[in-house]
Amino acid sequence: MTTDYVGLQSVIWSGDKLDLLDQRLLPEEIVYLPLTTSEDVWEAIRHLKVRGAPAIGISAAYGVFLGSRDASNTGEWLEQVRKEAEYLATSRPTAVNLFWALDRMKARAAAIVESELPLEAAKQALLDEAIAIQSEDEETNRSIGEHALTLFEAGNGVLTHCNAGGLATAKYGTALAPFYLAQERGIPLRVFADETRPVLQGARLTAFELQQAGVDVTLICDNMAGMVMSKGWIDAVIVGTDRVAANGDVANKIGTYSVAVLAKAHGIPFYVACPMSTIDLNTPTGAEIPIEERSAEEITEGFGKRTAPKGIKVFNPAFDVTPNDLVTAIITEKGIIKAPYDVNLKNLFV
Amino acid sequence: MTTDYVGLQSVIWSGDKLDLLDQRLLPEEIVYLPLTTSEDVWEAIRHLKVRGAPAIGISAAYGVFLGSRDASNTGEWLEQVRKEAEYLATSRPTAVNLFWALDRMKARAAAIVESELPLEAAKQALLDEAIAIQSEDEETNRSIGEHALTLFEAGNGVLTHCNAGGLATAKYGTALAPFYLAQERGIPLRVFADETRPVLQGARLTAFELQQAGVDVTLICDNMAGMVMSKGWIDAVIVGTDRVAANGDVANKIGTYSVAVLAKAHGIPFYVACPMSTIDLNTPTGAEIPIEERSAEEITEGFGKRTAPKGIKVFNPAFDVTPNDLVTAIITEKGIIKAPYDVNLKNLFV
Repeated sequence: MTTDYVGLQSVIWSGDKLDLLDQRLLPEEIVYLPLTTSEDVWEAIRHLKVRGAPAIGISAAYGVFLGSRDASNTGEWLEQVRKEAEYLATSRPTAVNLFWALDRMKARAAAIVESELPLEAAKQALLDEAIAIQSEDEETNRSIGEHALTLFEAGNGVLTHCNAGGLATAKYGTALAPFYLAQERGIPLRVFADETRPVLQGARLTAFELQQAGVDVTLICDNMAGMVMSKGWIDAVIVGTDRVAANGDVANKIGTYSVAVLAKAHGIPFYVACPMSTIDLNTPTGAEIPIEERSAEEITEGFGKRTAPKGIKVFNPAFDVTPNDLVTAIITEKGIIKAPYDVNLKNLFV
Repeated sequence: MTTDYVGLQSVIWSGDKLDLLDQRLLPEEIVYLPLTTSEDVWEAIRHLKVRGAPAIGISAAYGVFLGSRDASNTGEWLEQVRKEAEYLATSRPTAVNLFWALDRMKARAAAIVESELPLEAAKQALLDEAIAIQSEDEETNRSIGEHALTLFEAGNGVLTHCNAGGLATAKYGTALAPFYLAQERGIPLRVFADETRPVLQGARLTAFELQQAGVDVTLICDNMAGMVMSKGWIDAVIVGTDRVAANGDVANKIGTYSVAVLAKAHGIPFYVACPMSTIDLNTPTGAEIPIEERSAEEITEGFGKRTAPKGIKVFNPAFDVTPNDLVTAIITEKGIIKAPYDVNLKNLFV
């Protein structure tokens, strides 16, 4: 683990409590909430104080430790770990990463009990598992960043869309990881952040967290991406993804597809950064990825103020799919994958 | 003039006063302000109750009449007309169309005096000039709409960006004119309106005025244009323009260029609608068109609530330039112009 991370951490274990950055208050206020019980953690996940699949999973893992640390014997402790894991799983019912982390904590506790560690050592070993989940996430993202950084040169302009950043993870994020590493090493990059309507993750989160880290970042509206490309300011695009299909089609926040088309039209490489866990070989192509449609109000009254006429028909897809032929490379912790994706993604897993 | 306009009129002469739609209240409220003096008109222009170059020019023309109608002899009347025109010219100091309309009213008054009409007839003749300015604008837009409508088929999906609509003009607008005509004639079209960040003219005005007219309109965020094109929902794009250069390069609201690139990538025709007066043969190419940059706050606090971190660097160009090779046709009141634009635009004026 490095000690020179220039970014803001969203989840910090501080010895006997979890300090959690309240992301609902960003970018206006930076407030860390001290969480000392599993109820605190449940509430934080439920009410979106913490967001981002990895950060949620990490928080929940610490939540299991917090909820079971007062047990007075090993049997009670194992029972409590299971109860807390079940309880914390109800905080966000569709978060795969959350369930994964909780299952891992349960399995670890069972293994600890089998190994007949004394109670206090058992509790410490379970805490170590939560810390491991966090530091493995950090290592994964750091590796993604290292590989991605080889694609950029000092002085490059790089555009990103939405937020695949450090706040959603242990550290570094995915698409933003190379920017943090470049900043640590004094390599100048100029980042352009699409604000990303309707929910403005680019403005509220990406611009914020890069600014906090001292990265040179410029906020633009989504519809300015083409113009900044035409001015020659953009040398590469890098984005995160929610799911990569077996053929290399990429589902990500709405607007990603437009950026990919614009990048191609300007001869600019389009990169996707993600951990291996995001690649789903069971999904043959992007056509099989369901696209959630969200409420009209997200567009028409997203900011407390109505910005469109009442009753107007709205189309509000949360994601879009970028076909593999627009993807220059996919960057994982294991390295940089290029076409043909159907072959090369499969090879990653063997 | 037609009597079956399905749209909302922003400027209505109602016999002895000007009824002006207060555009600051849209899309929440539809309120017509009765303007009876030139001061009323000056104030309405100054405080953006009326917007759009043609609508401003028309309002100012009526303002000259209102400000001079109480004169008690012809000499005093002509003097008053000139004074009112100078006064109204101070309401929006950079509005070319405003000056054009006021100059026309002054010249008309001078000609009326030369022709020795009696005072009441002179006043009526000047009012007729204001009415003529309004109905000529309506006829221009209607002609643009007629030509544009030949490019669409019943059932087509058509995407537009920003607002080149009826509210900015006497009636019909430019890019929206074919939608009003189609609606008058029962020809079904499905319009997609980009919301057009940062000022949201698409959401606040285009979606509003088409909805009012009963047109089938769907609001999307700017970054969804590529996705709706990829779904096969869009058969054509049509936009207005602030200036067309002699070579056919088109300056228009920021984001237009991105839409044009996306249209080309999807094999969708990209049309620009404008009156002849928008074509500037003295500007050789788009590179000579200055692009205004506006304040960061338009992006960071546009919704009344801060949506980006304090001190963030912002790039906020008000316009972009779409090069002529992305423009399928330019539609004017004289007909449909295609490449080579350098030759064909010049021929329009001979």
